[in-house]
This record gives sequence, structure tokens and C-alpha cells, in this order.
Amino acid sequence: MNNTFGTSVSLTLFGESHGSEIGAVIDGLAPGIAVDEERIKQALAKRRPSEASDTSRTEKDAFRIVSGVFNGYTTGTPLAILIPNEDIRSCDYTCGIARPSHADYSAYCKYHGYEDYRGGGHFSGRLTAPLTAAGAIFLSALEKLGISVNTVIESCDLSKAADGDSVGGTTKTVISGVPAGVGEPWFDSVEGLLSHAVFSIGGIKGIEFGAGFAGASMRGSEFNDAFRMKNGKVITVTNNNGGINGGITNGMEIVFRCAVKPTPSIGITQKTVDFIKGEDTEITVKGRHDGAIVRRIGVVIDSVSALVLCDMLARRYGTDVFTRGFEG
Amino acid sequence: MNNTFGTSVSLTLFGESHGSEIGAVIDGLAPGIAVDEERIKQALAKRRPSEASDTSRTEKDAFRIVSGVFNGYTTGTPLAILIPNEDIRSCDYTCGIARPSHADYSAYCKYHGYEDYRGGGHFSGRLTAPLTAAGAIFLSALEKLGISVNTVIESCDLSKAADGDSVGGTTKTVISGVPAGVGEPWFDSVEGLLSHAVFSIGGIKGIEFGAGFAGASMRGSEFNDAFRMKNGKVITVTNNNGGINGGITNGMEIVFRCAVKPTPSIGITQKTVDFIKGEDTEITVKGRHDGAIVRRIGVVIDSVSALVLCDMLARRYGTDVFTRGFEG
Amino acid sequence: MNNTFGTSVSLTLFGESHGSEIGAVIDGLAPGIAVDEERIKQALAKRRPSEASDTSRTEKDAFRIVSGVFNGYTTGTPLAILIPNEDIRSCDYTCGIARPSHADYSAYCKYHGYEDYRGGGHFSGRLTAPLTAAGAIFLSALEKLGISVNTVIESCDLSKAADGDSVGGTTKTVISGVPAGVGEPWFDSVEGLLSHAVFSIGGIKGIEFGAGFAGASMRGSEFNDAFRMKNGKVITVTNNNGGINGGITNGMEIVFRCAVKPTPSIGITQKTVDFIKGEDTEITVKGRHDGAIVRRIGVVIDSVSALVLCDMLARRYGTDVFTRGFEG
Amino acid sequence: MNNTFGTSVSLTLFGESHGSEIGAVIDGLAPGIAVDEERIKQALAKRRPSEASDTSRTEKDAFRIVSGVFNGYTTGTPLAILIPNEDIRSCDYTCGIARPSHADYSAYCKYHGYEDYRGGGHFSGRLTAPLTAAGAIFLSALEKLGISVNTVIESCDLSKAADGDSVGGTTKTVISGVPAGVGEPWFDSVEGLLSHAVFSIGGIKGIEFGAGFAGASMRGSEFNDAFRMKNGKVITVTNNNGGINGGITNGMEIVFRCAVKPTPSIGITQKTVDFIKGEDTEITVKGRHDGAIVRRIGVVIDSVSALVLCDMLARRYGTDVFTRGFEG
Repeated sequence: MNNTFGTSVSLTLFGESHGSEIGAVIDGLAPGIAVDEERIKQALAKRRPSEASDTSRTEKDAFRIVSGVFNGYTTGTPLAILIPNEDIRSCDYTCGIARPSHADYSAYCKYHGYEDYRGGGHFSGRLTAPLTAAGAIFLSALEKLGISVNTVIESCDLSKAADGDSVGGTTKTVISGVPAGVGEPWFDSVEGLLSHAVFSIGGIKGIEFGAGFAGASMRGSEFNDAFRMKNGKVITVTNNNGGINGGITNGMEIVFRCAVKPTPSIGITQKTVDFIKGEDTEITVKGRHDGAIVRRIGVVIDSVSALVLCDMLARRYGTDVFTRGFEG
Repeated sequence: MNNTFGTSVSLTLFGESHGSEIGAVIDGLAPGIAVDEERIKQALAKRRPSEASDTSRTEKDAFRIVSGVFNGYTTGTPLAILIPNEDIRSCDYTCGIARPSHADYSAYCKYHGYEDYRGGGHFSGRLTAPLTAAGAIFLSALEKLGISVNTVIESCDLSKAADGDSVGGTTKTVISGVPAGVGEPWFDSVEGLLSHAVFSIGGIKGIEFGAGFAGASMRGSEFNDAFRMKNGKVITVTNNNGGINGGITNGMEIVFRCAVKPTPSIGITQKTVDFIKGEDTEITVKGRHDGAIVRRIGVVIDSVSALVLCDMLARRYGTDVFTRGFEG
Repeated sequence: MNNTFGTSVSLTLFGESHGSEIGAVIDGLAPGIAVDEERIKQALAKRRPSEASDTSRTEKDAFRIVSGVFNGYTTGTPLAILIPNEDIRSCDYTCGIARPSHADYSAYCKYHGYEDYRGGGHFSGRLTAPLTAAGAIFLSALEKLGISVNTVIESCDLSKAADGDSVGGTTKTVISGVPAGVGEPWFDSVEGLLSHAVFSIGGIKGIEFGAGFAGASMRGSEFNDAFRMKNGKVITVTNNNGGINGGITNGMEIVFRCAVKPTPSIGITQKTVDFIKGEDTEITVKGRHDGAIVRRIGVVIDSVSALVLCDMLARRYGTDVFTRGFEG
Repeated sequence: MNNTFGTSVSLTLFGESHGSEIGAVIDGLAPGIAVDEERIKQALAKRRPSEASDTSRTEKDAFRIVSGVFNGYTTGTPLAILIPNEDIRSCDYTCGIARPSHADYSAYCKYHGYEDYRGGGHFSGRLTAPLTAAGAIFLSALEKLGISVNTVIESCDLSKAADGDSVGGTTKTVISGVPAGVGEPWFDSVEGLLSHAVFSIGGIKGIEFGAGFAGASMRGSEFNDAFRMKNGKVITVTNNNGGINGGITNGMEIVFRCAVKPTPSIGITQKTVDFIKGEDTEITVKGRHDGAIVRRIGVVIDSVSALVLCDMLARRYGTDVFTRGFEG
């Protein structure tokens, strides 16, 4: 459903980088979850370019929760978060000149020129701010159930990002504490739902679970995760399946890696087209840019993963699972 | 929605490997699409283990279309396909002994022991048969719009699959003819929808679009696909983004690669548990098995991709696009 | 989603009155629910025209459950029910002549002439057979939770249905045992979900909850249901709101009435058009027809209501509620 | 999906009567629709209590569109509308005392006491303001396709609403210009979708299409709408089916009537309970109230109907139908 994701617990995103405000609406999350604004601030700080070398555009993320929280707890009704845009100068952008690796041209084809083209509009990475704020709330809800989500940078060669160039990298996400038996066979497999959500994030171009692509060249005898009993609990000796068998969690850690492409905006002149005039041209993106968005993508991956987990758990155990617990 | 995928055009899967019949229901597909039963047979033949070395269990796929087709054309109402199971011997399976890399244990946790555990039950690869039959219809509908989907094996070292062992491999899928401007920003990106569907297929553990994981170690100046005009049309010189910018098609070929894990069933004794008794044990899977399912997964990837494309196109252009064409 | 209804627990319908089989797929229903085939037969018998005066076409409902049940219990995976069509003579129907009050013409406009026009095709009341079979399973699941659904005929003047004419009538449905606090504010109100499902049934043209239309002419002081404590429980003294306040159950019985239009097929010559030729004509529907389908619609209303309730309860309490109970 | 309605075109509602802002997010609506803020103001004025006799609480509806509109036209990306709450005094409300016919008690059961109970919270009729603002945009989109939606009061005896009492009434909605062939058989019938949306509105307790409940006592020969050719077009002589056959539009006007219950808030002391203390009590709702909300419900019914129509048309004809037209 376009800009809404999730069935029992859902998130709706709206806004453009140059509108007055961007935001997110959480729906279906249980009543009674403590909302810690400090934690949201910390999550937003992780996402925000902190160093001068990242981007010159100062992003202040003065969020406001305008509904769905009462006396510090979620009410269970839609929770809307607004973040005002500041420092929005529209003069940097030229309509018709496609920035390579950006959505300018594909968005033009989709929206017939009505799209807000300034600064990426609705496609702007800026919208990961409300996503991250919402994510902080989802992560709090999961913590109460003993579930943690943690994404780290696995590889990123910053030394290559000199002279206005940029780099990509890979991340590794580990999710602990999800009980065995969550997920669906076929279409709503854990891999399917997580990948669907993760590919929402601009710049992610690959995902692999467990041994992933490396596993494709193993033999079965090497890849298969042997089951064993340990302290009365079923475990696997290896985790090449990334905690998921047949689309369903098996109680081991859910593990996946993502490929993040190099930041599209670079300070080097590039060949492109003016798609309105229909002619070849060049583009030099002005201003300073974040040469490695992979450095701050982790908290966004955590956020969309947490959304998926909250949704799967609410579908499985009911909306009250976050306050009642698995055993309630 | 569990075993249903798609919004405007959807597919519902049902059945177990040891029930009387398995099947699929297509909904929302336009009226007036010619249904060629010969083509469905050919698709099923591609999916079927053809050699003795693959599997000893003979799968006959005598499908019946019981609704939604009248006088050789789709009616526009639900199209149900049934495939009877034959040669179903339940004695090969023992409840409680988890086959490594299979869903036996995770399904038990989800379904509390009520699942049909014989031969993988609803998790059986056998259900890719109705998926493939449905896929043949989706692929026909796409062809009329000039869209082709083609998956090939990219790597698979069959020589390693000796002595009862198995191998995995990688596949490459190329989709041609999709107009620019299809897909949604954020949650319903083309990558998101395709990956969601592709991970439905048991054994797929990774997906990457365009340059994928290799792209993560490129510089932006190397990765970014320069736009150029060619014969009055916007193209990109390279295709590291796999035909997708900001989640939306840019008119280039959509390209993705999948990691297929080694076939879980191997003829080698493995360590495992009896999860009902709660004790360590060993398992030796009897019978002969397909040592490399990657060889016949291509038509299944084509099928789920075709489902996603039909759904995206119907959402964008209306249900009649398949008979009216893009320009109608 | 066209022919699928429900989010956590869903039902998909397929088939045409003159195809080989019609059917339904239940998805998302908990594992471990006893499936009593005798009860399904009884439900189908209630729906079936039992008297010669009703319809001459003998409908045998020899259903088969082909998936989702193992050892007498639901497995939790999709449960498909098939019912073969018998006695299908296509010669009674002429394409192009619109039967008044039937979907012949509107279906032609939607499906451009590709629809299976024989006997109403997919629009045939015949499809209430798999709906009813599925309903029997939903009703069993609800019973275990102490919830009953019961529809009775409230008015139906059979004496008017002479000489080939037909009559309509009204029904009253009472649902007992649903806990307070189920449903959603705004779009997924209990009234919204129940009415959505109930209007699936051909011939239903009105629905009202509690005092309904009569309540529209009351004063607030007369209509408002006073709350009182009774045996430690909150009750209302009257039930003009039909057990629903603000879209959410209040613990009282859910009560609604439906208006069923007269059976469209009558043995009297009617004015109509040949919509293919584009000219006025007359139609005399041959054969004997059910002069008052209202007599056998009750079990169908029970069935769709039970689907809605199962879905709402699974969303609220988790999929296991049917085996675990509300307190589990 | 809780507070979101619609598939191709959707609306998400958020906010509470005593929060800082309430709002709505439209998603999936085509780019290129002119957004006329004056028209939104007029729609909001229709909804607003205009006379002192209606309510003493002044509602100012100073809406802001914060995304999805650029240079006066929809962009095609999510369109968020915010309306600040003013004059929010929380002292009028007592938690635990259930106002009869309101959601106070049922909401408490659902949200376990975490709900914002002030002034109805998320259940407040105040949320029809963003719904109405969104509706004005949907209605504009429909007008370009030649479709009008018009709801009038059919009955409402204001003379009974004296001395602090209130009255209900009935409304009649006529939708013109929808082509034949829109809607789905079974679950997504036009009646099903419209009723689902209409019952979102607090206070509506009944809906009937065409002859509705009156039709239930007609004979088939009287009820059936005879088809005729008129100016080369198929019409029906009567419209007892309300423009819908088999769930699908037949090209005639869609006609339905709604039952609106008396305004729950009255200035008369009522029996009720304190559901926190678990004891009988009385309530006298202070302040002045709108004695007949039926007077201003028409524009809200128009709005939700317009949402349903936009969604159905986008599903049928594609998202661009609003700019391209039916023939494009």
C-alpha cells in the first residue's frame, strides 16, 4: 500500500524535503508502551550527519508527537510524529537535470512532472528521520519483550571517499530474542517481510540472510545447520540459515547483511540528460554531501526491522503482546 | 496476508505435499487473456525433476483449471488451478525428527504439532508447481505488453553434489520491457516487492539488484549510472542500479541475482534433535533427492516475478492494461 | 482485495455455477480447531433449497477438504474446500439478455464479454455453498470461545410468492459472547466490517444495527443506552446501539437486521434489453426458482459474520486465541 | 487496517480532540489534481457547527497541507493535512464515567485505560474535520471525471430537540456519473465498500441501497428494475437496486440512505456507571451540544463516499484515471 507498511502494526510516511514538515503515523501499536522522547532524540542523532565532512546542510530534528501518546504512554490509537524542515533553500535544484543514481528521472516518469523535485522531494533521505523516530518507539516495545535489533557497519572504505567522491559499504544486522515459530510459509516469510521493508531505504541494493551468497557455493553437508539440545532448548550449531527455516524463525538469532551503494550525490561532474529538453548535458552537484551514508544507515535498518518485528508479533500474539508478554 | 500475495492482482497458494490436491487461486487478472494450457505444461516441465539423478519421486503435474477461464480466455474472476498429488507415501517421514535446514522444527513451534509434517507439508517445494502454473499465465499476460522475464543459472558446481551431498548456486534474472515510472517510493519499491515475492521460494537466501554487493565497494563516481539520450529515449550507460532508481523503474532492464542454498535433503547422516522427545539424535534422509534444486528454480523465480509485475502494472495502469496496452 | 476478505483470518472464494468445481480457501485460522464434517453438512443442508417449490435444480454439496486439515484438526495452513458442480446444463442461458436485478449486464460491462455468463457465473448464489462450508468451521472456532451467531427470519410474506413471483424479507442476527473492546475506531468499526461482509451476499440491500432506522426518529434521551452494573459487570439497560459504541463492542449482544430483496429470478415475463444487440426485448426465465431465498440466507449471514468475528478476534488476541482462549 | 481505508487510494486518520493537531494522510491519489483550498474551507464550513444552538465550542479549522501538493497540484505522493485543535479545555471530562451512547466504556475495554479520554479522544467527531478536508480533494478529483456525490437530509425532526435533548435523522446520498462495470463480485461489492466506509462515521447505525428495507416487502415483479434502451444506452426504468447489480455498478445513479442516531451528548441527566469504580452513578454532560449532528453529517458522508469511489476507480482504471479520463 504505497507509503504504508504493515498489517497489524503499520507505519505511514509523508513529506518532502522542502515542505514545511515531514512525518510518520504509527497505527495498531498496543496501548501502554512508555514513550521516551530522549530515546527518540538519540536515535535521530545517530541518523543525523554529525560531522562537517558529512554534509553542510544542518538538519535539526525537532520532532513533535501530536497524537497517540497520553501521559507518556501510547494510547493505542494512531501516533503521529511531525518533524519540521528547516534550512530549505530551493535554489540548488534544477528541474529536468537528472542526478545520476537518484530518482529524479524515474519520479518524473511516474508523476508526469507534478512531483516536488526540490532536493529529492518525497524520495529524499530526509524522510528517514520520521522513520527513525518511529523506529525508536518500535525498538522500545521490542525491548520489553527481550528482543534487540542491532546493525553495525561491516565494511566501508572511507579512504576512497576523497575529492568529492563517495563510497558504499555493507552492514550486518543481528536480531536476538525472537521466539521460534514466528513468520509465515510462502509469501510472508520472515526473509520476505524484512527484505521488503529494508529495500524501502534508498541506497540498499542487496540483502542476504545467514550465509547468503557465500552459502550458494557450499555443499549441503556444510551448509545445513545441525540441531542440538542445549539446556533443554533446541539450538542449531551453525546459523547459515540466519535463524529462519521455511520462512519461520527457529529461535536462533536472525542475521542479515545489506549492501549499501555509494552515496549518489558526489562533488564530481557527471554525464546526464535534461529529460525535459531531451538532450545530453552534465551535472555538478553543489554543496557538500555525505560521502558515506552507510555510516548512518544502521539506525534506519534497525527501525524498519523493528517495524516488521512488531507487526509479525502482533499478528501472531495479538496487539497486547507488548504489554502482556509472550506468556500472558 | 499469509498465503496470498498481491494487491490488484493476487495469488493464493494452498495444499500440502501429502494431501489429495494442491492449488493456487489467481485473482484480479484482467478478462480476455488467452490461457494456453500447453505453455503451462512446458513451465511445469521446467520445474519438474527430469532426471533420475534429481529425485526418485515421480511428480506428475496433471493440472486442472476449475474456474476463471471460459472459452480459452480469462474471465476476470478468480482462476483456480488444481494439481493432484500422486505417489504420496507417508511412511518416509518421522514426526519429531527435525531435518536440518528444513522447516520441520520451526513449523512445529508455529503450529504446535497440528501441522501436516509429512514431506514438508505445506512447506514442501511441491507447492511451487501451482505457483509455476499460475506464473505461466502471468508471463503470457506480460508478453502481450512486450515484457519478458528470464532467469538463468549463473553458478552451480554440480561436481560437488556427489555421494549424496547437494549444492546451491546463484541465478540471474533479467526483466525487459517495463516502462519507466513503475513502483512506489519507500515501502512498495520495485526492489521491495520483488524481494518479498522471491523470498517466498524455499532455499533463496539472498537477493541483489544491479551491482548489488559488489557495488558496495565501488566509489560513487564508478557506481552512478550516467544518463544519456539514445534514439530520443533516456538510457543509462551502465546499469549498476539494476533498472531501479528510488524504488521506481527507470526504463532499463531490471536485473537481480539470487543466492540459492544447497538442497537441504542430503543422503548423508546428520546430527539433529527429536524435538518432541527433546533429545539429540541423528537423521539419514532416505530416498534419492534433487542434489541441486537451483537447476529448476529459474521458472519459479520467473513466476513470482511475473506476479509482482502484473500486480504493479495493474495498480499503475488499471486492470485492463493487459488487454488495452499501455497506450490504450 | 476482490474475492478475498479478512486480514488475519481470511477467506478466498472461487468458481462459477457451471464450472467443474467451486471452492473456498480459509487462511490464517489457528491450528488445532476440530473440523466436524457432519456440522459442515448440516450447514450446507440449511442453505440448500430443500423443497420442490424452491428450485428444481438439485444441488448436491459433496464437499471435499483438500488441505489444511490433518487428523481431524486444522493445521493452521490454508484450508481449501472444493464442491463439485453437478447437473450443469448450459442451454438455459442466453448471452446478451439481461435478467432484471441480476448481474448479467453489469458483469458484461466489467468483464467485456469474457465473463462466464452461464447461470450467473461467478455471481451465482451457488458460491454461497463454499462460503457456508467455511462458515461452519468459523462458527466452530467461535463456539469454543463461547460466541454464538444466530440469524432468524424476521419477516417474509410467502403468500405473495405465488404464480411465479417472488418475495424478499428481513432477517435478524444476534451475536452473543463477544468481549467488550473488540473493533477499531473509524474505518474498521464492527459495523463497518460486518456490513462489508454481509453485503457480499447477493440480495442483501440494507443493514441496520440496534435500533437502526427506527432509532433515527428517537430523541437522544430515549435512544441512549443507560449503563448499569449487574453482577459486577457493566451492562446497558437497552441495546439501541446494537452492542457497539464508537465502532467497538461494549459487551452486549451485537444485533443487526438485514433487508433481503425479492429473489430476482421469477417466472413472469419481464421487460429487458439485449445488451449485445442494443435493443429492447423481453425475458421469461425458465425452470422453477426459489421464490424466497430469504428462507435460506440465514446460514450465509451467520457464515460471513463468523468470518468477520474470527478475523477481529485474531487481530486483537493473536492467532492462537481459538485454542488458548481469551485468558490464555 | 485500523485507521487507514482504501487500497489504491487510501486515507489515514490520526489525532485526538484534545491533542495539539489532528490530521489525515491521503496516499495513492494521482498527480496533477488541482487543490483548491477555498473548496476545502467551504467543505469544512459545512461540517462546522455554525449556530450557537449547535455547540458552544468554537471549532476553527485552520488546516495546513504539509505535503503532497506542489504549485497548486497534487504531486502523487502522500498528501498530509493538519488541523490544529483550539479551545481545548480538559477539565470537562471525568475518566471512568461512561457517557451513554459514547465510546468511553468500550474504548476503556480496548485500550485498558491508556486512551486519551478527554472529549472522546480519537473517537471524537472532531476527526471528521480532516476527513472532510480530504473529502473535498477526492470530490474535486471525481468532478473532473463527471462524477458528483450529494447527500441531503431526508428526515430530521428538530422540534423534538428541545430542553437539552437531541434528535437523529436520515440522509439520502445520490452519486451520479459512475460508469457501469465498477466494483467487484462478493467481498468488494460497491455496497460492501460504501457501507464499510460510511459506518466509520460515528452515529450512523443503518444503511440501505435503492429500495432497501422497503424493498424487502415487495414482490420480485415489482422490485426488479426492468432494463430498457434509451438514446443508445442501457438504463433501468426503476432503480430499486440503487444502481448496483451483483455488487457492480450498472450505470444508473448509486443511491443509498443512512440512519443517523440522535446526538449522544444531551443536557439531561442520565443513568450510567463509573466503570473504574464499578458502581452505578449519573452523568450530566455540561456545556451546549449539537442537538442534531445529522444536519452537518452530509458533507462527511460525501467525503467517505468520495474516498471509496476514488479507490474503486483507481483500482479499475489505474491511478492516472483522474487526469487521463476514462477514455484515455
